[in-house]
Order: sequence, then C-alpha cells, then structure tokens
Amino acid sequence: MLPRAVRDLTQELTRLPGVGPKTAQRLSLHLLRQPQNIVGRLAQRLQELHASVNICQTCFNLAEGKECEICLSQTRSRKIICVVEGALDVEAIERAGAYDGLYHVLGGTLSPLEGVGLEQLTLEELFLRSDNSDVTEIIIALSHTMEGEATARYIIKRLEEKELLVSRLAQGLPTGGDIEFADATTLRAALSGRKKMSQ
Amino acid sequence: MLPRAVRDLTQELTRLPGVGPKTAQRLSLHLLRQPQNIVGRLAQRLQELHASVNICQTCFNLAEGKECEICLSQTRSRKIICVVEGALDVEAIERAGAYDGLYHVLGGTLSPLEGVGLEQLTLEELFLRSDNSDVTEIIIALSHTMEGEATARYIIKRLEEKELLVSRLAQGLPTGGDIEFADATTLRAALSGRKKMSQ
Repeated sequence: MLPRAVRDLTQELTRLPGVGPKTAQRLSLHLLRQPQNIVGRLAQRLQELHASVNICQTCFNLAEGKECEICLSQTRSRKIICVVEGALDVEAIERAGAYDGLYHVLGGTLSPLEGVGLEQLTLEELFLRSDNSDVTEIIIALSHTMEGEATARYIIKRLEEKELLVSRLAQGLPTGGDIEFADATTLRAALSGRKKMSQ
Repeated sequence: MLPRAVRDLTQELTRLPGVGPKTAQRLSLHLLRQPQNIVGRLAQRLQELHASVNICQTCFNLAEGKECEICLSQTRSRKIICVVEGALDVEAIERAGAYDGLYHVLGGTLSPLEGVGLEQLTLEELFLRSDNSDVTEIIIALSHTMEGEATARYIIKRLEEKELLVSRLAQGLPTGGDIEFADATTLRAALSGRKKMSQ
C-alpha cells in the first residue's frame, strides 16, 4: 500500500547492517518528512563516495589520492610500522595521539571459516615493506581475538629471521575487544606498554 | 584522518534517527566496501523519493498521483472512514485485511508540548469529509497514549451533533502501544470489537 518509491528505498535500506524491514520502513518515512535538500545531500554524498576514496598504494589505508595523508606526511617517523586490521583502527590510534610512525592496513585477520586466507590480506606487502632498511620496528595492533592472535603469530613467525623489533599492543586492551572501540587512554597505555616479541 | 568523502557521508548519516557518530562511521565504511552500483542505487532511490511521492488530496495518505490507491479504488466502501495518525498505520491495518472502508491520515496527534496543535493536523478536513451524506461511521484508530486519547476526545466532541456512528478500536490494543507495531491478529480483534461511542 505504500508508494513504490518508499518500498524501493526501504528495500535498499534493509541491506545496511543492523537495519531490519521495520527500521528501514521507519527510516524511509523519516526521510520523506525531511526537506528534499537534506535527502538530496545524503544521496549526493553516497554518489561521491566511491569516486573520491582510494586505497593508499603503500599502506592500504583509505586515501584521497594515491597515498594516504600519513604516508605523505614529512613529519612522521619511517622507522616504525603499526599493523592494523582496518581504517577505523588507524582512526582510533590517531585519536589517541601517542604514535607518530606509519601504518599497514591488513584488510582483516586470518579467518579460514569466513574465507579470509593469506591472499585476502596485504601480508606479503607488509613483509616487502619491512625489508626496507629504514624500518626498525613492527608494532602489531590487532584485536585480541582468535583470528587476531593467529594473524599476529603468523606475522611474528615470518619476521623472526629479520633484524627487526616486533612488538605487540598489550596492556589495557581487553581480550576479545575491538581496537576501534577502545578509548584513547586504553590505547595510550597499550602503546607505551607494548611487549617485545623478538630480538 | 578518514578521507573527506567518508567524513561527509558520516555526518549526513548521523541525522538519521537512532544513528550516532560511531554507527554512522561504521555504516560509511560498510558502504565503501560494497560494490559501487549498490551504493549508487541507494543514492538514486533517495533522489527519487520526494519527486515521486505525493500526499493524497482526500485522505492525506501517501500517494503516487493526486489521490492514494485506496481513495481511487472502486471496490472500497465509502461509508466508513478510519482515522489514523500516519501512513504506517494505514499499512498495518491493510495488512490485517479486515477493513475495506476509507482512511483519514491526521499527520500526528494533538501534543501541545511538541508544538502539534489543531492547525498541524488534518482535523478540519476530516470534519468536512464527515459531512458527506455517504459517510455513516467514523472509526478512530489512534494509539492509546495521552496524545491519542486527547485527539480522540476532541474528534468525538466535534462529531457528537452529527448523525454518525463514531467508534474506536478497542479490544486487543495494549495501552501505550503504537498501532503500527501491532500484529495482524490484534488489529483484527480490535476492528471487530470496536466500541460504540455515540448515537
């Protein structure tokens, strides 16, 4: 009984994570009550999204050009690489303001059950970057979940023959917790209390 | 640190009801991981929304043309008008499949604290429609909340001098509950057990 445009929008909205048919219907009706220019702006932002966001060719973080702001920065230390799962982890660690090295975004953690193997992650690119003689330390900043542990162990094993300090965020991060939800104080504690794993 | 396009989209998404900054950020990143055509389709649906949805000039339900499907229908009874708050209530009662009369969408309930007075609702239009000699019954299908009760009382008072049966959905609807969330069985019981209020 609802107009076709409302039903079509509702159907598209149910594709979003955590949005069921009822919520989608209410969102559609809410948007219909908003001024047209507000809805138009949301539509435009969605249109622009893919066109104006790239993946950094060095660290695989989100970028506006070919490289992300952090890789392009002249003031950041090129000696340390912090390995994270995704762009929101970079965002969280930057907010903590206690780290001035580079990042490497893996794009996930090893999870054979969900079809995430070595090929789906940017692990080989990390090992190539770590061959650079400027690099002296790799900080593993992966979530303390089973998949995070497995990925961390794999990275440590692959790096153990190299002349590198490999460390891992430790103190403060609760087991099973997601890095992107950790508060700045917890992240600062985890950065300063990182545990030496080799050398 | 996130690209401008991601931040802009995140900001627009926080305007949606129930979406905070964290949820909006996760939705933006989720959309970035989706194929561009999926996101493009959502954007297009949003663009089309206002242009292709009208308000029925008779009952104020959502419509694709000048009048809604129900008002245009040749098979529905023109003797009964069911008064509801919004379009989702029409949707819920239609799903119950136990009513074949017309509707009148008020656009809300009287709520002085939220700035909803007589002028914001389509009450005068309802009283004009009820003057039509075809109409024999007005069913009040408003939520059993304080605002719903006040609005129902106002309608009953204004209609008491007219030769009309005024009834109200009763049995089955829990006090304080929203009509649009009621299941079909409850709505059917409420329709068949409606309580005579005048005449």
